[in-house]
Amino acid sequence: MHVMRGIESTHDGFVASSRKRFVKKASPEKDLESLCTEIEKGSRLYLAKGITLLESTKQSDKLLGQEVLTKLLPKTGKCIRIGITGVPGAGKSTFIEAFGLMLADRGHKVAVLAIDPSSTLTGGSILGDKTRMEELARHKNAFIRPSPSAGTLGGVHKKTRETMLLCEAAGYDVILIETVGVGQGETIVRGMVDYFLLLVLTGAGDELQGMKKGIMELTDGVVVHKNDGSNMPLVKKTVREYKRILHMLQPTSPGWTSTAQPVSSIERTGLQEVWETVLAFRQAMQENNYWDTRRQLQTKDWFHAMIRDHLIDSFFAEAGRKSQVKGLEQELMEGNVTVTSAVDRLFSS
Amino acid sequence: MHVMRGIESTHDGFVASSRKRFVKKASPEKDLESLCTEIEKGSRLYLAKGITLLESTKQSDKLLGQEVLTKLLPKTGKCIRIGITGVPGAGKSTFIEAFGLMLADRGHKVAVLAIDPSSTLTGGSILGDKTRMEELARHKNAFIRPSPSAGTLGGVHKKTRETMLLCEAAGYDVILIETVGVGQGETIVRGMVDYFLLLVLTGAGDELQGMKKGIMELTDGVVVHKNDGSNMPLVKKTVREYKRILHMLQPTSPGWTSTAQPVSSIERTGLQEVWETVLAFRQAMQENNYWDTRRQLQTKDWFHAMIRDHLIDSFFAEAGRKSQVKGLEQELMEGNVTVTSAVDRLFSS
Repeated sequence: MHVMRGIESTHDGFVASSRKRFVKKASPEKDLESLCTEIEKGSRLYLAKGITLLESTKQSDKLLGQEVLTKLLPKTGKCIRIGITGVPGAGKSTFIEAFGLMLADRGHKVAVLAIDPSSTLTGGSILGDKTRMEELARHKNAFIRPSPSAGTLGGVHKKTRETMLLCEAAGYDVILIETVGVGQGETIVRGMVDYFLLLVLTGAGDELQGMKKGIMELTDGVVVHKNDGSNMPLVKKTVREYKRILHMLQPTSPGWTSTAQPVSSIERTGLQEVWETVLAFRQAMQENNYWDTRRQLQTKDWFHAMIRDHLIDSFFAEAGRKSQVKGLEQELMEGNVTVTSAVDRLFSS
Repeated sequence: MHVMRGIESTHDGFVASSRKRFVKKASPEKDLESLCTEIEKGSRLYLAKGITLLESTKQSDKLLGQEVLTKLLPKTGKCIRIGITGVPGAGKSTFIEAFGLMLADRGHKVAVLAIDPSSTLTGGSILGDKTRMEELARHKNAFIRPSPSAGTLGGVHKKTRETMLLCEAAGYDVILIETVGVGQGETIVRGMVDYFLLLVLTGAGDELQGMKKGIMELTDGVVVHKNDGSNMPLVKKTVREYKRILHMLQPTSPGWTSTAQPVSSIERTGLQEVWETVLAFRQAMQENNYWDTRRQLQTKDWFHAMIRDHLIDSFFAEAGRKSQVKGLEQELMEGNVTVTSAVDRLFSS
């Protein structure tokens, strides 16, 4: 009983401190109002506060976060959402910084988010080290939010989606979502962006070996990175190879032929071409009506994924359920029971 | 009330007629005993009866089917399971007949099954037209079972898996599972076979366009079909192209480099080479221990897929649930509600 109370009060203490920054004396209605207004005006501070509410584990904060998001929903959707993946070492941060700076310099408002499935296991985060994008982070038109820390994959997924929507309401018109090309990250990101970009190095074949199966078939565009110095002839060859593969595979987005382009982030070359490709993509998708259709499908898929997650999580959270399933798995491995009988046993008990 | 009774008696009538063939006067225990013995002896008639029990919609039949399967489980697993896919027109039946006949003539016992996700919608079946494999169907070492008719995809999936196990208990040492390369069929088949073969025609790029995304990355081996007459130079070129793509993609099976081979089913060339590749694959997988590991993972995945299906089906079967979800989807599309709130509403009601 003492222990329980201890946990509760710690928990209250933590959340209270995160709330009091803007709750203070005003009424909850007024809070909500002013938080929304400040986010809409483009305040990075209030945007960060809104995101913290969405990510909070405290019920009342979560509800407030949802209210904010609901109020701001009509302001969302007017942006280009770009997913960026690549093997570790492909230079994702360098590319995002160079690409983001080019856009921010031209007056675009650029938000950088991250999905890192591995962080749910290790507690690490690909954007955790903010210094990797120092120049972009200081730019007045940029907002960088590290990956939400530990939680279920579904949770990270949900938080990044809602963070993206809040950024849009705050006027960010280009959202860059970074993921590592391992695990399920890129499938999740593909499910929340308009355009999916794969960053690779030369020596395509060997490199792709380390990536998740099917990644080429999620890709709207390939960037062959580090197109500088003595690397340039090899980049040229690799671009050609990727174009060849992409031509063989089914297009990710209807009516769009994915292509490969060379980029040097150090020399800032090829970045303009990548942006032009993204714009051409948007125009093609808007002309064939797939731009909105895809987003609606993504929302619907997300809704159904969350329903499924909820059902499965609740089932396995029942007392003794996990060990019962483990026991049945053992029997299955030993060949004592059929899968159908095992499932029947689970649901008749 | 009259209508209900009508339906029930029709149902009883149907199932009774499928049971009486072997139930007759004997006790249920003796039935079970003799059914298992006959299947083990290799009786195709009793094998078909056993499969009918597994596929039955009547509870008592289903239970009996499960008892039979449980009793025979120790006799299963001693075979090579090969999945075969390809776009319509690639010549899957012709290939399966030629390949199956070659094996059956050498004393292998060959069972041919099918998964056809489209049949759950259209009521059709890719193996429904048995005449397509007339010669193989008449061979004493072959057993052909058409795709189970209409039902949920999960149901078809389950039935084909259990049918496969029963065939193994009946001594079939090569199982060929056919699927069309559209929809989810090939992912399901990949999840129940050891070796997955993709049948293609020349003009690789154009053809792949019509196939499901990621299919190349499920593939252990590609057969370029119709390697006869004036088509031969083009087949040679296509084989080279596929080898090139396969080399770029991550291997489907650890330690195995997928390859492409030319085959003519009409002239019966290349079939022996395909079989040798399958045997080399088995040896490689057994040496690195992945043969058994994969099968165990497949069983476990199947178990968990059935748990998920059961949870989701039960949820959506609740009264009014479907229209409630439809209504929330509508609100989501209109941007009146966040996904998180929609899910909360669903589970708090």
